[in-house]
Amino acid sequence: MSDLKQAALDYHSKPRPGKVSVELTKPTETARDLSLAYSPGVAEPVREIARDPETAYQYTNKGNLVAVISDGTAILGLGNLGSLASKPVMEGKGVLFKRFAGIDVFDIEVDSESPQAFIDTVKRISPTFGGINLEDIKAPECFEIERVLIEQCDIPIFHDDQHGTAIIAAAGLVNALELQNKKMEDISIVCIGAGAAGVATLKLIMEMGAKKENIYVLDRNGVIHSGRTDLNQYKAAFAHDTDKRTLADALAGADVFIGVSSANLLTAEMLNLMAPNPVVFALANPDPEILPEVAYGIRDDVIVATGRSDYPNQVNNVLGFPYIFRGALDVRATRINEAMKIAAVHAISALAKEPVPQVVRDGYEGVEMTFGRDYIIPKPTDPRLLGVVTAAVAKAAVDSGVATRPYPAHYPLNTLDDIRYS
Amino acid sequence: MSDLKQAALDYHSKPRPGKVSVELTKPTETARDLSLAYSPGVAEPVREIARDPETAYQYTNKGNLVAVISDGTAILGLGNLGSLASKPVMEGKGVLFKRFAGIDVFDIEVDSESPQAFIDTVKRISPTFGGINLEDIKAPECFEIERVLIEQCDIPIFHDDQHGTAIIAAAGLVNALELQNKKMEDISIVCIGAGAAGVATLKLIMEMGAKKENIYVLDRNGVIHSGRTDLNQYKAAFAHDTDKRTLADALAGADVFIGVSSANLLTAEMLNLMAPNPVVFALANPDPEILPEVAYGIRDDVIVATGRSDYPNQVNNVLGFPYIFRGALDVRATRINEAMKIAAVHAISALAKEPVPQVVRDGYEGVEMTFGRDYIIPKPTDPRLLGVVTAAVAKAAVDSGVATRPYPAHYPLNTLDDIRYS
Repeated sequence: MSDLKQAALDYHSKPRPGKVSVELTKPTETARDLSLAYSPGVAEPVREIARDPETAYQYTNKGNLVAVISDGTAILGLGNLGSLASKPVMEGKGVLFKRFAGIDVFDIEVDSESPQAFIDTVKRISPTFGGINLEDIKAPECFEIERVLIEQCDIPIFHDDQHGTAIIAAAGLVNALELQNKKMEDISIVCIGAGAAGVATLKLIMEMGAKKENIYVLDRNGVIHSGRTDLNQYKAAFAHDTDKRTLADALAGADVFIGVSSANLLTAEMLNLMAPNPVVFALANPDPEILPEVAYGIRDDVIVATGRSDYPNQVNNVLGFPYIFRGALDVRATRINEAMKIAAVHAISALAKEPVPQVVRDGYEGVEMTFGRDYIIPKPTDPRLLGVVTAAVAKAAVDSGVATRPYPAHYPLNTLDDIRYS
Repeated sequence: MSDLKQAALDYHSKPRPGKVSVELTKPTETARDLSLAYSPGVAEPVREIARDPETAYQYTNKGNLVAVISDGTAILGLGNLGSLASKPVMEGKGVLFKRFAGIDVFDIEVDSESPQAFIDTVKRISPTFGGINLEDIKAPECFEIERVLIEQCDIPIFHDDQHGTAIIAAAGLVNALELQNKKMEDISIVCIGAGAAGVATLKLIMEMGAKKENIYVLDRNGVIHSGRTDLNQYKAAFAHDTDKRTLADALAGADVFIGVSSANLLTAEMLNLMAPNPVVFALANPDPEILPEVAYGIRDDVIVATGRSDYPNQVNNVLGFPYIFRGALDVRATRINEAMKIAAVHAISALAKEPVPQVVRDGYEGVEMTFGRDYIIPKPTDPRLLGVVTAAVAKAAVDSGVATRPYPAHYPLNTLDDIRYS
């Protein structure tokens, strides 16, 4: 057994199983305490909420509570292993929400027989929560599931495998393009992998200026073109009338490669086909489409990002989702809309241009942290993310009309201690 | 606004909304910690659980996690106020589970359009949990909901409004009958209220020896008799071919009155109709069917219990559910069966005969705590409940074949610190 494997199993099982517990935030020592926490005192907030449902945010933990929900159909890169097997991941996501943004998470594993059953289930339990983070649900079902839930629920619904990845990738891309002196409006893009992350990333960068006619998408069967009869509606939206069929065909002269597929697909020959000063986001995990040292060995005008923490420029969702939900909850947004996502993108990309505090440098000895080829994305441990991303998201929610409370007077947040739970 | 009302609203809203938070039980400071808690390390327990689902109890919090779930159709005595309004109660139930038995609770409020939709929802999210406590669901739907969920889920399902009340009432009744020198097999019983608590209490004491032919049940329309055409199957099971129609008719010569109805229904005249040395469980909340001082003023051979904490002999579910679930979880029982419920009854009733430790007396100055008319049920703050009830329930689970792990070597539990979460 590898060291990591044993360490991970020990971490999850010792000294007690799992990674979270539920704790009490109010005194429960005396009989009086208990008469307030439960019967008869608890009848008072019940009556208030029955009279005005909004007071649930005042008298319960709803406003700081996010559900992390999966059906287990696409767990990490491991596939459909069933809802129960997704529980360590969902608990782990909860750990990140708490650790980085002070948000309480109930992980919920749904054993559902169909996408509709999953939708029904999530919708019915939604009153419990202030927001819902969908996770590890396979494509293309995840698109429809999220669409319907957004339509039917009055709280933010966010499929992080789509939008979390999209937001961090877009933030990195904004900076990479600046360094390469290219514009979003002009670049040609090749994306291999037409699942949740790929489709969402392309949609987001199109909203930020990228042109559909300049984007080629590939799936297992090669380039998505208008002659194909095996495409779902989400893939079909990217079909071109083109003779390109292979990854090499598509990459000829391309500015940007986005990989959300599998290991080592991008060969030296293919990389050499790309335009001058290309950008390669090789996001397959754990093994990217091309390793950074391999790419830099082939050409030195490329900028490479991966999903890995042991290389520069990690596209890591944790830079986004904790703060996006924190901002959304704090202005009680009814949804997380495109304006909020794009605000998060710009907040993250802007932070990468700021001098990095010593506390962050201390955790990454010898790692480059000056804006440039090896530092286009902030580090996950950067404490400034809490302040800048939440503020940007909350402001965008207010400005775009989906906030039901004003921009918080106590923003920006400097530390978790600055969070106000009411 | 009354003092209690304001204190209850303040308790729920200050300094932060609600009564619970989710906390982390593992270190999350370093990048290494996070690589174990989430990707890539988390893939290891995922693979283990996919290979052997039982290891979910080893690598996640499932084994110490109970769902407290309501559809809000019968909140406290307040009626059908909707699922959201039930949240303070469900959170409060979670507080009691944690405070008394160290069990982590996710409160889940289900906005469901039908009992079947509620069943489907609970069943689908059940992999998340080690057990499910149903709460505040109206009768008669609650009976069928619980029956189907028990049949379809592989974890304990327990509707506390039924069985929690039944177990504590039965424990008190066992002691009251001993003091009155009566036997369960011989007594005649009148129960007013044929909802969740009434039906479950009668079923449980019938399993403990009470005879159906000696039991008269009343609902809003009077005595349940075989000439009635307005009965659901749960009420019909108690129908007699009888001329009795009113509460007074039924009470003539009765040994035991069980009230789960509404305030002041039991008049002086009616109480005087009962047999010598009667037992009155006036459990309507907050105002019992008869106040103890009124009953004792009418006849001094009666023993009275209520649901109120400010009178002797409080029938309080918190004496049961935390420990019943603790015992069931610790032997990983697949259900909470009748043997386990009856074991809980006898453990609770036996404890009332033991000398009470000073630590309990300190919380109830001037209150009688010697086994007798004013002390037939232990106090909720009695720390010995944790040891005796969990042990009795766990043993009964093992002996009756529903446990999947042996009787815990670390039992009996003396304090919450003795709990082992694996």
